[in-house]
Amino acid sequence: MLTKNVVKDIQSLYQKKFRDEEKLFIAEGPKLSHELLQRKELICNIYATKDWLDANAIGNVPFTMVTSAELARISNLQTPNEVLIVAKQLENTSEFALEGRLTIIMDGIQDPGNVGTVIRIADWFGVKQVICTNDCADMYNPKVVQASMGSILRIKFCYKEANDINVNKVPVFGAVLNGKNMYEYSKPSEGILVIGNESKGIREPLLSAITHPITIPKIGEAESLNVAVAAGIITAWFTH
Amino acid sequence: MLTKNVVKDIQSLYQKKFRDEEKLFIAEGPKLSHELLQRKELICNIYATKDWLDANAIGNVPFTMVTSAELARISNLQTPNEVLIVAKQLENTSEFALEGRLTIIMDGIQDPGNVGTVIRIADWFGVKQVICTNDCADMYNPKVVQASMGSILRIKFCYKEANDINVNKVPVFGAVLNGKNMYEYSKPSEGILVIGNESKGIREPLLSAITHPITIPKIGEAESLNVAVAAGIITAWFTH
Repeated sequence: MLTKNVVKDIQSLYQKKFRDEEKLFIAEGPKLSHELLQRKELICNIYATKDWLDANAIGNVPFTMVTSAELARISNLQTPNEVLIVAKQLENTSEFALEGRLTIIMDGIQDPGNVGTVIRIADWFGVKQVICTNDCADMYNPKVVQASMGSILRIKFCYKEANDINVNKVPVFGAVLNGKNMYEYSKPSEGILVIGNESKGIREPLLSAITHPITIPKIGEAESLNVAVAAGIITAWFTH
Repeated sequence: MLTKNVVKDIQSLYQKKFRDEEKLFIAEGPKLSHELLQRKELICNIYATKDWLDANAIGNVPFTMVTSAELARISNLQTPNEVLIVAKQLENTSEFALEGRLTIIMDGIQDPGNVGTVIRIADWFGVKQVICTNDCADMYNPKVVQASMGSILRIKFCYKEANDINVNKVPVFGAVLNGKNMYEYSKPSEGILVIGNESKGIREPLLSAITHPITIPKIGEAESLNVAVAAGIITAWFTH
């Protein structure tokens, strides 16, 4: 049974302002819930249908059994899916060592699906850290959380002004339209891969910081690739 | 000036049933409009703001100047973007030669963003034909059109029952979780790349038809990759 106030509190978490204040976020559906159950210390409360609760051993974690109609009131999905978890945001460090490893920088990626998909790519290919410029979509936006499929729980990330990112110590690979053929680069032992805004590409000051411009060879006629797809193709090559 | 009936007709095209009946589809925003202006014979009408019409030479094509408020009434975008075009669907052939070239098969890809992104990938890498099983998202769904960034105008595609796809003549590469390392395959001169449903993967009968199971090596911990990203990574490798 959900009170009006609980519904209101949960709905408020769909706004960044309240997420930031409360340091909480929402994860929906069985897949994400499965990931969060590996990190029980982050779970504030599970709102789930009887079927889901019967089928999942949640252990000693607070929960509220809800009807499908109640779930629909607190869900952000077109088709609410059995379970919604309110969880604590991770503490994020703001300083990463860039030497000796790969780091992805997202420069102004505004589509939450793209941000989440890049985090999932990083997690698949063992790229353990990601830096976002402050105008990227919020990592705890429910669509980012959804697209990341839980990978935001495993990848270190921070948000910064582009000017405050010190990229001088390692090679800076930038995905651009007129760079060097990707396959002419060998697997780097360290470096940064910068991917740019959906329509503007990589902007200053990061554009000038690129030491290794990189292009995915084009054979057909499309004007560009989706940024997350481009990130996936380059990251696959760099880590293969 | 838009009449109620025109608004109703345009809105009906957000439903597959009416798109199929009328053989029309909707493309929104400057980028897609730019692509369609290369194919003027497909345009039924352009609904655009004065600013967009002033800035674009549309030639001898029917158009209606609309206010931003009117555009919002016919748009499906959260932020309507200057121009919306009602266009004719392409005539699609149902039989493709599979020999001597690459073909992508989408098996039950239901997310319209993924379907459109795969079409854009095909178009970038020169894969000229795509077969969708009938339960894939509709190619003229506005979200597919949007994600394809106009590539649906250049790629041959058809929809079929999986049973009716005759894949016997060429190697069938299938993206699966336990296949052979992608980089152990050399660039194929012909073949099919099958990519599967977001949660179920590749299903029968296509699963049994795979002659070359293929896996993108995983280094980190994510459970899977987004299907469009996986399609991009494999297609990049196969065509590099």
